[in-house]
Amino acid sequence: MPRNDGRKNDQLRPISFTPNIAPHSTGSVLVAAGNTRVICSAMIEESIPNWMKFQKVPGGWLTAEYSMLPYSTLERKQRDSAKGRIDGRSVEIQRLIGRSLRAVVDLDLLGPRTLCIDCDVLQADGGTRTASITGACVAASLAVEKLIEKKLLTKSPIKQLVAAVSVGVVNGEPMLDLNYLEDKDASVDMNLVMTANGQFVEVQGSGEEQTFSESELAAMMTLGKKGIGELIAAQRAAISSASAETPEPVGLVFPS
Amino acid sequence: MPRNDGRKNDQLRPISFTPNIAPHSTGSVLVAAGNTRVICSAMIEESIPNWMKFQKVPGGWLTAEYSMLPYSTLERKQRDSAKGRIDGRSVEIQRLIGRSLRAVVDLDLLGPRTLCIDCDVLQADGGTRTASITGACVAASLAVEKLIEKKLLTKSPIKQLVAAVSVGVVNGEPMLDLNYLEDKDASVDMNLVMTANGQFVEVQGSGEEQTFSESELAAMMTLGKKGIGELIAAQRAAISSASAETPEPVGLVFPS
Amino acid sequence: MPRNDGRKNDQLRPISFTPNIAPHSTGSVLVAAGNTRVICSAMIEESIPNWMKFQKVPGGWLTAEYSMLPYSTLERKQRDSAKGRIDGRSVEIQRLIGRSLRAVVDLDLLGPRTLCIDCDVLQADGGTRTASITGACVAASLAVEKLIEKKLLTKSPIKQLVAAVSVGVVNGEPMLDLNYLEDKDASVDMNLVMTANGQFVEVQGSGEEQTFSESELAAMMTLGKKGIGELIAAQRAAISSASAETPEPVGLVFPS
Amino acid sequence: MPRNDGRKNDQLRPISFTPNIAPHSTGSVLVAAGNTRVICSAMIEESIPNWMKFQKVPGGWLTAEYSMLPYSTLERKQRDSAKGRIDGRSVEIQRLIGRSLRAVVDLDLLGPRTLCIDCDVLQADGGTRTASITGACVAASLAVEKLIEKKLLTKSPIKQLVAAVSVGVVNGEPMLDLNYLEDKDASVDMNLVMTANGQFVEVQGSGEEQTFSESELAAMMTLGKKGIGELIAAQRAAISSASAETPEPVGLVFPS
Amino acid sequence: MPRNDGRKNDQLRPISFTPNIAPHSTGSVLVAAGNTRVICSAMIEESIPNWMKFQKVPGGWLTAEYSMLPYSTLERKQRDSAKGRIDGRSVEIQRLIGRSLRAVVDLDLLGPRTLCIDCDVLQADGGTRTASITGACVAASLAVEKLIEKKLLTKSPIKQLVAAVSVGVVNGEPMLDLNYLEDKDASVDMNLVMTANGQFVEVQGSGEEQTFSESELAAMMTLGKKGIGELIAAQRAAISSASAETPEPVGLVFPS
Amino acid sequence: MPRNDGRKNDQLRPISFTPNIAPHSTGSVLVAAGNTRVICSAMIEESIPNWMKFQKVPGGWLTAEYSMLPYSTLERKQRDSAKGRIDGRSVEIQRLIGRSLRAVVDLDLLGPRTLCIDCDVLQADGGTRTASITGACVAASLAVEKLIEKKLLTKSPIKQLVAAVSVGVVNGEPMLDLNYLEDKDASVDMNLVMTANGQFVEVQGSGEEQTFSESELAAMMTLGKKGIGELIAAQRAAISSASAETPEPVGLVFPS
Repeated sequence: MPRNDGRKNDQLRPISFTPNIAPHSTGSVLVAAGNTRVICSAMIEESIPNWMKFQKVPGGWLTAEYSMLPYSTLERKQRDSAKGRIDGRSVEIQRLIGRSLRAVVDLDLLGPRTLCIDCDVLQADGGTRTASITGACVAASLAVEKLIEKKLLTKSPIKQLVAAVSVGVVNGEPMLDLNYLEDKDASVDMNLVMTANGQFVEVQGSGEEQTFSESELAAMMTLGKKGIGELIAAQRAAISSASAETPEPVGLVFPS
Repeated sequence: MPRNDGRKNDQLRPISFTPNIAPHSTGSVLVAAGNTRVICSAMIEESIPNWMKFQKVPGGWLTAEYSMLPYSTLERKQRDSAKGRIDGRSVEIQRLIGRSLRAVVDLDLLGPRTLCIDCDVLQADGGTRTASITGACVAASLAVEKLIEKKLLTKSPIKQLVAAVSVGVVNGEPMLDLNYLEDKDASVDMNLVMTANGQFVEVQGSGEEQTFSESELAAMMTLGKKGIGELIAAQRAAISSASAETPEPVGLVFPS
Repeated sequence: MPRNDGRKNDQLRPISFTPNIAPHSTGSVLVAAGNTRVICSAMIEESIPNWMKFQKVPGGWLTAEYSMLPYSTLERKQRDSAKGRIDGRSVEIQRLIGRSLRAVVDLDLLGPRTLCIDCDVLQADGGTRTASITGACVAASLAVEKLIEKKLLTKSPIKQLVAAVSVGVVNGEPMLDLNYLEDKDASVDMNLVMTANGQFVEVQGSGEEQTFSESELAAMMTLGKKGIGELIAAQRAAISSASAETPEPVGLVFPS
Repeated sequence: MPRNDGRKNDQLRPISFTPNIAPHSTGSVLVAAGNTRVICSAMIEESIPNWMKFQKVPGGWLTAEYSMLPYSTLERKQRDSAKGRIDGRSVEIQRLIGRSLRAVVDLDLLGPRTLCIDCDVLQADGGTRTASITGACVAASLAVEKLIEKKLLTKSPIKQLVAAVSVGVVNGEPMLDLNYLEDKDASVDMNLVMTANGQFVEVQGSGEEQTFSESELAAMMTLGKKGIGELIAAQRAAISSASAETPEPVGLVFPS
Repeated sequence: MPRNDGRKNDQLRPISFTPNIAPHSTGSVLVAAGNTRVICSAMIEESIPNWMKFQKVPGGWLTAEYSMLPYSTLERKQRDSAKGRIDGRSVEIQRLIGRSLRAVVDLDLLGPRTLCIDCDVLQADGGTRTASITGACVAASLAVEKLIEKKLLTKSPIKQLVAAVSVGVVNGEPMLDLNYLEDKDASVDMNLVMTANGQFVEVQGSGEEQTFSESELAAMMTLGKKGIGELIAAQRAAISSASAETPEPVGLVFPS
Repeated sequence: MPRNDGRKNDQLRPISFTPNIAPHSTGSVLVAAGNTRVICSAMIEESIPNWMKFQKVPGGWLTAEYSMLPYSTLERKQRDSAKGRIDGRSVEIQRLIGRSLRAVVDLDLLGPRTLCIDCDVLQADGGTRTASITGACVAASLAVEKLIEKKLLTKSPIKQLVAAVSVGVVNGEPMLDLNYLEDKDASVDMNLVMTANGQFVEVQGSGEEQTFSESELAAMMTLGKKGIGELIAAQRAAISSASAETPEPVGLVFPS
């Protein structure tokens, strides 16, 4: 039985990366995973957090912010700034994005700078946090290339690519890369963050107010690893095509 | 002597409208005025502010929010939500956008609903508040069309189109539609908000810590009225082409 | 047909300035424009905003805060501090007051200091923002005189006087200096900020959810310029009488 | 040895009450105790706090807010609204003012309304909290008279007058009604709130980071009771003169 | 090679539960896991969140709050209330506690009530979030017993016990139940939340800015499952002993 | 007629001090006064408030924070951090605790450090602020002993012990050390803070929306002084027993 959008259980949604979506950023990309679209940006700030100034080893920092634009959902979502504080879910997600990227970045190589990752969801259809991580890694790679070009860095601090994908159990079936309707019906929701060489960065499985078994966990891990492999390949293609073809900021063109 | 981007003093920057940039919104558009790009959205909320509930005449409301995305500027701009409050300039701008749109919307025709305008600056190169108003009017028009199509409205509450443009005096020369570098050097900065039939909605001229003369004011008014006429024509073209050609959400394609 | 308070269309409300209303301030005045009364104060702080410290040209700053006292309106107005944030209208007004004063103050002459303007509305009957600007200019002038007397300044940084007035269209009639009832019924509301030598500092006309024509704009400008001239004369009289008669801070003497 | 302003140890500063300082308030007064000046207002809100709605006995409430205007001190005091929260000292003082007034007001007679007391310090020279209580009682009395006149109340809910005064020990000498310089040097600071019939409402003595003896306490109590008697007499005179002479709100007339 | 506190790699720290630590709570316990000590409380509020009121299925809710007391760490930790907002880590942890408990509670059986879990860390030595979950389950069980006793519930909504434990890799060695020093040196940190019948509720493994391999993951899972079994046994003993021996709330008796 | 818990009018509730309740704190104690239980902690921070840095006399500071844990009351109390601000009552109490302790501490002897007092109410049954002061003095004494032992201080900055007790008038009877039910019915509530040598630190009597007479005041003072004497004796015993018997931090041992 096919999934609600015709995919097979182990099939990713189409993924695409449109580089340079925000030309004032050092590196930016619009990542589209099916109908989920996230603007990802990576910018350098020439400062580090106060608490780092007292560390022995001088080095940089990487921080991430995540936000859903108010029109990303079918019912308008109130802005955090209008509420005066960031909601708990966003806090959790931006901490996850930050940890995931820091796992593959050599902060010492950055120097006393902060790499600021921003992920703004333009359209939400499930998997916004995993798309954010996957896109942020591409944005960071593009930013680093520009910094090397400008002689601000001599060597890339990105040790390897990192990507993320969701897996879940829907109506008893383990499935890869859930869209919103699947996510809503899932009895388990799991996010895998992995590197190009097959190492884990984060494993977050949650029974969503239910529980799950060890065999479900195993099936989800298998699906997830398959998906990560394909995402890493897509990231690589996007990064190399952006660098080769677009010395100048490219326009904002979507795949037909 | 030509301007820093080769334009004549009375020449607008190229303006374009990409409809349906945020497909979950009722009506949305990416407006590009030169290098200034703003995502404009118009969504309906089925409620009205508390203070309206005690008004005699039942009717709707229109509200606007404006924000600069952190990567819209060459130095990353801190998010309002991270600061816990909206900065003074954004408050002023979103109040202006709201007033400008309400001047051309028949709120009684809306019914007890709120039309929520959102303007998020993707790239800032001067004139973000005027581009926001001009784009928001297109987004609102697209939203109203969809609401009429869905029989939620029987008649458009938009009485006429509204557009906005900046004018200023730079090195003694009155100029239309200032970009960021011109804006920084301007001795006067003025924003005109006008309707399709040539009425004024807002006139906001500020000496930017300096003063200006009556003849400078007159010259700026003349330039501004010329620009508004061209913007209204561009809005009309965008609205009619979006409705005619794109029954389905169009992709995000930029003018070459 | 006379106005609701018997004035002619081109007639200001009686304006008066009571100096030294807050003797601990460097310069203060209670300005009364009809029934609108605002306490205006100008005090020096021996510091400048952080962002100025990195500017090339060393110099001072001028900042303004505006607030309505809770008993200034017929229904008690909640304090901003009780809400935890300043409301949007107040933000807009205090930014306007600051810009208006900075347009006539030579900040470099101030030295590395901040001139802090405070405007607290004691009674609100329309035109509180224009009365605030007009009064703040007098308060600042008195403060500067005292600083010169104390040898903290050698030369006045106030290049010329600035005053503000509202104009509007009520029942089709252009009118000068609207009171609250007129303001509520106005189809256009405009604030003019001008200097003693007839230059413009700010022109802010708003259709108040309606639109207005070019001829209405012209009629309002004419009324406004007449009003500004009279206000500047009243400011001059107040400043010279305060300086002449009260070398020492006058006490706050109320009718027995 | 006389005090720094020539008073005897058991002598109050001159106290005066200027009624109707804020004509939009139901009842208002400017109280001056020496150089300490506080605007006191009492206004009715036609609502009660949420927590009262579940009380068995229907009745009203009385609440108080206290604030120092930024120009009330010789060094400008930052506004609470600019900090986003009310400082601890103000919280403590406004709770004291509220308790003191509620001790003499029959809340049941108020009906389901809130009597809102506001105290804004225009000039601070010691004793601002006691002047606020003394002035607030006069403002509340004037407000109640107006409500009775308007038939909104049939009987005054104010059971008797309440006044407050500070006493302290300065250089070993017990003194009444300390000014700022005395307060700064005091080894004990005590505030007495008492009623017209000699009952206590609040007794707050604090060693100000020091301690005090029982005999010092006794001496301060004696001074305080004397002062309260004089303050109650001054309140009575102010209330009866305001009512007799000013059936209509008096204007705010300043010396020409 | 033994661990820094002499334990074997697969050995839990001593765990103990002191019931009724906060006698005003419906159910409370002090959980001690080695030197980590957390006060856990479960109280009923007779209301549900607003967003639940529109749900079709009537039922209850369970919410959790987590906080570190300022003296729980060797350097005093600033209170969230002093900062005006809850820090990101606490937000993440209290969301985890809430999800974990909701996975084993039948919210429909609760009726339209909220079960409020509070976890306050008295002493922090690693594993505060897992101790919080383990202790909260005991507190909730004691609360439910009391509600059944009082006939407020007829049947326990707790479907089975839930416990949590940390596992990690320290110096290449997988270890169970890390203390603070081990946690600081760990290259992987993982939290397992599991039920009495061996199902998973949450699996959260994080490379702590590093990555980990599939075999490390497998080793940690094995250790974690062993630990969970022992924790569930300890919870059972604590619950049955608390119910048998202490029909009345036990006092808080400390060593003489 | 005996009191609701069988005590005589001049009888304290049983008071006990459990030292080292929070072993990571420099000095801590759980104080129990009847059913009121408060965790009191004293920790050193190696910094002083900014405003002290400009003082002539170098020296330390002492600050206090007070909070009710959400499960300290029979109806769960919302956390301040969830509301985003500290409630007025807590602000008032923590200011009182700070002033009371500073009255007996020689801040100059502390050096440029801050002694941070924390009082968290575990169970509230009246008199939480007085128990907090009494317990905080013991916690501070234990902290100072440890600092002297560690050679961080050469001499104790605690000049003498300070204790606090409530007194009140309930049904016309003056009573010592009110519990919650008595406090709720009291017509007067008074808190006395006194030192070991019989000096006053704070006297705070409040008619709780009523008034009280001079003879009631005298009777309460007599009761209070008796209670303070007993509390100081209990503090002394607790401090000397804690120091004698527990050279090492005692563990937190609960009944088996």
